[in-house]
Amino acid sequence: MQNPSPQMQRCIEACLKCYQACFGTAMNHCLESGGQHTEPAHFRLMIACSEICRTSAHFMLMNSEHHTHVCRECAEICEQCANDCERIGDMDACVSACRDCAAECRKMAG
Amino acid sequence: MQNPSPQMQRCIEACLKCYQACFGTAMNHCLESGGQHTEPAHFRLMIACSEICRTSAHFMLMNSEHHTHVCRECAEICEQCANDCERIGDMDACVSACRDCAAECRKMAG
Amino acid sequence: MQNPSPQMQRCIEACLKCYQACFGTAMNHCLESGGQHTEPAHFRLMIACSEICRTSAHFMLMNSEHHTHVCRECAEICEQCANDCERIGDMDACVSACRDCAAECRKMAG
Amino acid sequence: MQNPSPQMQRCIEACLKCYQACFGTAMNHCLESGGQHTEPAHFRLMIACSEICRTSAHFMLMNSEHHTHVCRECAEICEQCANDCERIGDMDACVSACRDCAAECRKMAG
Repeated sequence: MQNPSPQMQRCIEACLKCYQACFGTAMNHCLESGGQHTEPAHFRLMIACSEICRTSAHFMLMNSEHHTHVCRECAEICEQCANDCERIGDMDACVSACRDCAAECRKMAG
Repeated sequence: MQNPSPQMQRCIEACLKCYQACFGTAMNHCLESGGQHTEPAHFRLMIACSEICRTSAHFMLMNSEHHTHVCRECAEICEQCANDCERIGDMDACVSACRDCAAECRKMAG
Repeated sequence: MQNPSPQMQRCIEACLKCYQACFGTAMNHCLESGGQHTEPAHFRLMIACSEICRTSAHFMLMNSEHHTHVCRECAEICEQCANDCERIGDMDACVSACRDCAAECRKMAG
Repeated sequence: MQNPSPQMQRCIEACLKCYQACFGTAMNHCLESGGQHTEPAHFRLMIACSEICRTSAHFMLMNSEHHTHVCRECAEICEQCANDCERIGDMDACVSACRDCAAECRKMAG
């Protein structure tokens, strides 16, 4: 297999780490905490973030030229999710994973 | 459940129909036919198309405001996939599902 | 494309319908209703159900011989999800989609 | 977020690594090599393997009790995929990722 470039590989890993952080936090910490954590707009954003990260990784793994657009959208959603997790608090791992992923995705978006 | 609007519901259905047509055709007809059908650029496009359709449906089902951007990307990939399937031939169901999906996604993209 | 058998096609459709009902209801009705609807065990079951339905459809679409095991697991999760939605109430579309999907998946599980 | 147990965390990582290896190899090395690599049974198995790995990780991340059954199925498909990649040759990273994932999934399957 012709391996992805080191930069793409870092982005794939950032996407899959962010997917894990957001989906795992939403389905455990958020559901168990309730209150602001299950407020529809916040919870949807975390699930949307985890899904676009999963999709971005998929597009990069298959070397689709369309990964640039998907990564651009991923960066935008991750940034918004980081801000919302920061606002609510108590989700530092998500904030950090989202910020890292947004930064890597912006590089791939060209 | 507050149902999606009729227009969004039509788009969700077009996405899931296109997902089925492209993924099913790639993994059966294309793999079994070989030749142009498994040429990397074509095969990747079909898998990319099926994946973005799956993701678009997911974003609309959860009522994420970000569905507009995902639908715009979906319309673009579906249009390209329709053209490539037409060029190779023998994949009328894909061409038609991709064209329908592109049209519905463009309406959602606003 | 050699089409799936009519029975498999019905199962694919039942899976994708159940995916839509469970994921859409969880991310809209359940999040907006709160209370029992966002109780972790219930909400996780709805998301698990939507995910295994998505995966079962994927395995059947690609004609993987392993669809029999995935469909068996899908039938089990759908049945449990139908019962839990019935217990909480107010989710008739999910109950019905889960029961249909469980019935179709049991036929595919052989 | 109550973190997954160290054993579950190792399994999630093994699943996501195997997903990357199988999907990336199928969509690049296999498509570009052709011949045995795009023989339908082999190619489908690699895609099935990548998909069940993605689903297993999803079930563990959400702490669904059903992860035990999904992990059992994942172990079986990974083992079969490892053997098939070994038979064809030239896919050592897949063989190794599949074997690791099968071993971790068997521990989770109980």
